[in-house]
Amino acid sequence: MSNPDPSIPASTAADLDRQDALAALREEFVGAETSLVYLDGNSLGRPLRRTAASMARFVEQEWGGRLIRGWDEGWFDLPLTLGDEIGRITLGAAPGQTWVGDSTTVTLYKLIRAAVDAQLPDGRDEIVIDTDNFPTDRYVVEGIARERGLTVRWLDVTTHGGVEVEPLRELLTERTAVVVLSQVAYRSAWLADVERITAAAHDVGALVLWDLCHSAGSVPIELDAHGVDLAVGCTYKYLNGGPGSPAFGYVAARHQSRLAQPIQGWMGHADPFAMGPGYTPAEGARRFISGTPPVLGMLALRDMLSLVDGVGIDAVRAKSVALTQLAIEVTDERLAPFGVEVASPRDADRRGGHVTLRHPRMREVVAALWRRDVIPDYRDPHGLRIGLSPLSTSFAEVEAGFEAIAEELGRQASSTTTA
Amino acid sequence: MSNPDPSIPASTAADLDRQDALAALREEFVGAETSLVYLDGNSLGRPLRRTAASMARFVEQEWGGRLIRGWDEGWFDLPLTLGDEIGRITLGAAPGQTWVGDSTTVTLYKLIRAAVDAQLPDGRDEIVIDTDNFPTDRYVVEGIARERGLTVRWLDVTTHGGVEVEPLRELLTERTAVVVLSQVAYRSAWLADVERITAAAHDVGALVLWDLCHSAGSVPIELDAHGVDLAVGCTYKYLNGGPGSPAFGYVAARHQSRLAQPIQGWMGHADPFAMGPGYTPAEGARRFISGTPPVLGMLALRDMLSLVDGVGIDAVRAKSVALTQLAIEVTDERLAPFGVEVASPRDADRRGGHVTLRHPRMREVVAALWRRDVIPDYRDPHGLRIGLSPLSTSFAEVEAGFEAIAEELGRQASSTTTA
Repeated sequence: MSNPDPSIPASTAADLDRQDALAALREEFVGAETSLVYLDGNSLGRPLRRTAASMARFVEQEWGGRLIRGWDEGWFDLPLTLGDEIGRITLGAAPGQTWVGDSTTVTLYKLIRAAVDAQLPDGRDEIVIDTDNFPTDRYVVEGIARERGLTVRWLDVTTHGGVEVEPLRELLTERTAVVVLSQVAYRSAWLADVERITAAAHDVGALVLWDLCHSAGSVPIELDAHGVDLAVGCTYKYLNGGPGSPAFGYVAARHQSRLAQPIQGWMGHADPFAMGPGYTPAEGARRFISGTPPVLGMLALRDMLSLVDGVGIDAVRAKSVALTQLAIEVTDERLAPFGVEVASPRDADRRGGHVTLRHPRMREVVAALWRRDVIPDYRDPHGLRIGLSPLSTSFAEVEAGFEAIAEELGRQASSTTTA
Repeated sequence: MSNPDPSIPASTAADLDRQDALAALREEFVGAETSLVYLDGNSLGRPLRRTAASMARFVEQEWGGRLIRGWDEGWFDLPLTLGDEIGRITLGAAPGQTWVGDSTTVTLYKLIRAAVDAQLPDGRDEIVIDTDNFPTDRYVVEGIARERGLTVRWLDVTTHGGVEVEPLRELLTERTAVVVLSQVAYRSAWLADVERITAAAHDVGALVLWDLCHSAGSVPIELDAHGVDLAVGCTYKYLNGGPGSPAFGYVAARHQSRLAQPIQGWMGHADPFAMGPGYTPAEGARRFISGTPPVLGMLALRDMLSLVDGVGIDAVRAKSVALTQLAIEVTDERLAPFGVEVASPRDADRRGGHVTLRHPRMREVVAALWRRDVIPDYRDPHGLRIGLSPLSTSFAEVEAGFEAIAEELGRQASSTTTA
């Protein structure tokens, strides 16, 4: 791609790639060899090359070879063993608190219902959630509030795009049952202060559920150390589990025996194969499982976890910060003249793994970029969102993407002038 | 395997295989070339050989090549397009009523809640279910009854192992909200008379939910023609979707606009990518979807549906009946002398795709069979359950399995005598 503007130091990205200890890992992913510029790893991570083979091998050897015996030989416990791995590698969670199973939406429903049902008898009849939380979180909360007769208290985050502790405190009372927030905001990339916010909720006796969909696998979190009560997260974004791979859930060990989730199925029973009358929930995290676990949907995730484990989540985060920092610097240098604004925090400590840029013509710009195999995504209002999956994205890829964005903004500007 | 008893016509199975127009399809499945005898296709169907390649290709080309664009190019609608295929090929359901997504348990929860919430305002506060329905159905019903303040009316089926219309009628009243039954009973293989039972429920204004887990893909059903209201079914048994592949749900078109399911997520929203405030359910079957669909879990199922479509579900059923008929005949000839009883209907019109045999030592027999790569399953009390997946099972395989069962029963008998 041409680099017609001498104000961009063409060497920056190349230098950063040369200094990047994780650079070689990019070759592990399908598509690394193509010219496509992928800036949407926060919506769907690229597959690892090894995953095609591991899925084929699973079909032929494990499913095809072991057949029903596979359930006794690991599949039955896979939601818990894989959950423990996610907990250890990315969440700061000791074993026995994390599992994999349903979709994010269903897991949110189960855990928010569990929290509400435990808190309602104490007169806690309010749920607090922010106005810019991911839609499915808001829809689930509204549905549960309606069915259980609770009030939703909305934390307005339209001014800064993220959740801060002081404005939140004004909504927290002895009537707060549960607070539902995202660690990283899906639009702005605002990174919440999990420790302080969790403590503020606990000050009034509320439980907190953290949605980790836009952080798990790119931003570390210390669920146990920060006293988090409940969490849910997605595995097809920075954990590269594949389209629609199942979500994980987390319930702190101290709460497990007093929380009951509403969808009581055979896989959460204390003795699943007794098949007798009446439901007795299993001890521990198994009680939050409902149906037969989606084994095929967990295989790619397992591959990616082993890659993250090899380098450590802190190294992943360091590269993520460097990638988003480059994106912001190039925006200031190259895109600000077109009137583009950075709609994500400039402070790396308050920023997740993506960056959102605003411009009135961004919808058209994104459509044009897709046509030339440069793939960010678009989010209302006027947002071009760049999701930089740390292990599969090079600095050169970011630079190439910004060249293309600058060109398309230039075209939009000239077509507007001409029109 | 030796055939020491001249009273078994060794030619029967071979003749049946020779006359079987579907015999060649067995070679399409992984493991057909091994000596393993698989009699548990009703718990987990074998993979198709093509599925290993189709999953690897999906990872490399669709997920890896199309990345996030795949959602616009088919994945987003896959729950509905695949649902329509299941409906057309196996359920007698017109398009727009069937979808694929969550586990069986979660789908049961959503649909029973939808039915109950619609019926409760009319004073219908009872759920009818049979005592031998699959555990997860019973657990879900008990949980919903508790949370919504309903009474469960249990239909006792211990005498015949299946649901019949006259005893059911005695439980149906103007207070019945929904009736939850299985088309084929997981233990006995009893095949319910869907048409008459559905009509009996409608006579009192109740809705009926049919669980098709143990029938879909082996026993035809006419959901539309028989006026069924709601259905749920499993795809990893006779539809060979792989361990934990997602369930399908069905809601008759006439009910869709008045039914609301409780887990309102972004994928069931009228405009999922508007991401605005407030939940508006989509029109049609999409409103019963909650979260991001498990695309990886649907690929194997798609392969199997195309195989079933090629031969037609009636041909599959005809082979299924022939297989279970052979199993019963061989039991009578070979296993009855050991005291084995057939615990499934002898009338093929009342029998699903599996056969359960009872004997006090069946737990030990099944354990011994597994050690020699003959794989039925065990279900309390004293049941050896033989699930004969029609397209991947040969008559010779059934015969070989029965030889092994007879040998192990013989060993059990002599060890009991010796002890």
